[in-house]
Amino acid sequence: MLREARKNELKEKLFRTAVELFREKGYENVTVDEITSACGVAKGTFFNHFAKKDHVLLYLGRSQVERMEEIAIKLRQISDPKERVRSLFRSLLSRYENEGHLLRVVMAETVRSALLLSEEEKLAGELRKVLAELLEEAAEDGRLTKRFGLPVLASALCALYFQAMMMTASGDKEAQKLLDEQLDAVWDGFGGAERTDGGTRP
Amino acid sequence: MLREARKNELKEKLFRTAVELFREKGYENVTVDEITSACGVAKGTFFNHFAKKDHVLLYLGRSQVERMEEIAIKLRQISDPKERVRSLFRSLLSRYENEGHLLRVVMAETVRSALLLSEEEKLAGELRKVLAELLEEAAEDGRLTKRFGLPVLASALCALYFQAMMMTASGDKEAQKLLDEQLDAVWDGFGGAERTDGGTRP
Repeated sequence: MLREARKNELKEKLFRTAVELFREKGYENVTVDEITSACGVAKGTFFNHFAKKDHVLLYLGRSQVERMEEIAIKLRQISDPKERVRSLFRSLLSRYENEGHLLRVVMAETVRSALLLSEEEKLAGELRKVLAELLEEAAEDGRLTKRFGLPVLASALCALYFQAMMMTASGDKEAQKLLDEQLDAVWDGFGGAERTDGGTRP
Repeated sequence: MLREARKNELKEKLFRTAVELFREKGYENVTVDEITSACGVAKGTFFNHFAKKDHVLLYLGRSQVERMEEIAIKLRQISDPKERVRSLFRSLLSRYENEGHLLRVVMAETVRSALLLSEEEKLAGELRKVLAELLEEAAEDGRLTKRFGLPVLASALCALYFQAMMMTASGDKEAQKLLDEQLDAVWDGFGGAERTDGGTRP
């Protein structure tokens, strides 16, 4: 366990050093040699952690997916489905606090590459899957609308999360607060008075 | 008017040619000379339309904002606020149909540049403003929830729109359909049975 922690620590260090170099010199102009020199480790060490340079850019998303699975297990203790989602989003966003600059470099290089973009799309798919699973129980016992499928709800929540992530990447400190309010709003519904009388809902 | 149309046509042609060249050779490696040569016009013509090469990347977003203002005026004929938003999103997304490849090049270069990203953020701000304006009337006469401010609702809608735009950029043909369903879902609310009885809503 301790060994695992040390391994993760080194991986994180390689990632941060690499992204910092990408930012300074441009992704294409940075070699694996430079990354390992800057970290003070042998070149081979890099390849114990990342199959190739590309994979550095996927590390952030992949480590979030790994954390997400752990977080999701704990979240099952929360009964209210909205609060489950809120808690998941808070945990995921907290990873990016004060790291907007890293996130921006990673996102820019990812959007440029068709391959990386399709890998990131898979990671977004994992988030939608976890969201759908977190909501499933509530859908079964009627604490969630039945008019729309879980994939529709999960993808809408995903859109809110990614916007908050983008805001965080731009250094916006209000991202979490706005996401909280948006979550309340989509749960309650945007529609007004005609809904609150309870009689006209189809 | 005819002259204006011809002018816009040439601007569109310069834009498309430039983005195609950016895709082939990389943004940094394309000169204004190459763009105008490929279009068969004099170099000066480029600068009648774009102040500098950067501005080509802002054209798509800016032309969408210009269209949006025209569209929004027509949308005032639609009384249902949700259908107003739906109609706006449809019009905006239709611009990107079969243009995913152009949109991807533009987005990738935009995310890389702090300057362009802040310009795009201003354009997103315009969309949020137009959305808030489109919803204002409904908010006043109670056809919209009063529990959340218009900025919260508008920014959530914006998040759904941008996700649909990203999906369109990746060539996903289901983007419009999913957005339609998400719109219905956020209007109705995700919450289930405890809301439909009409008695427990705060």
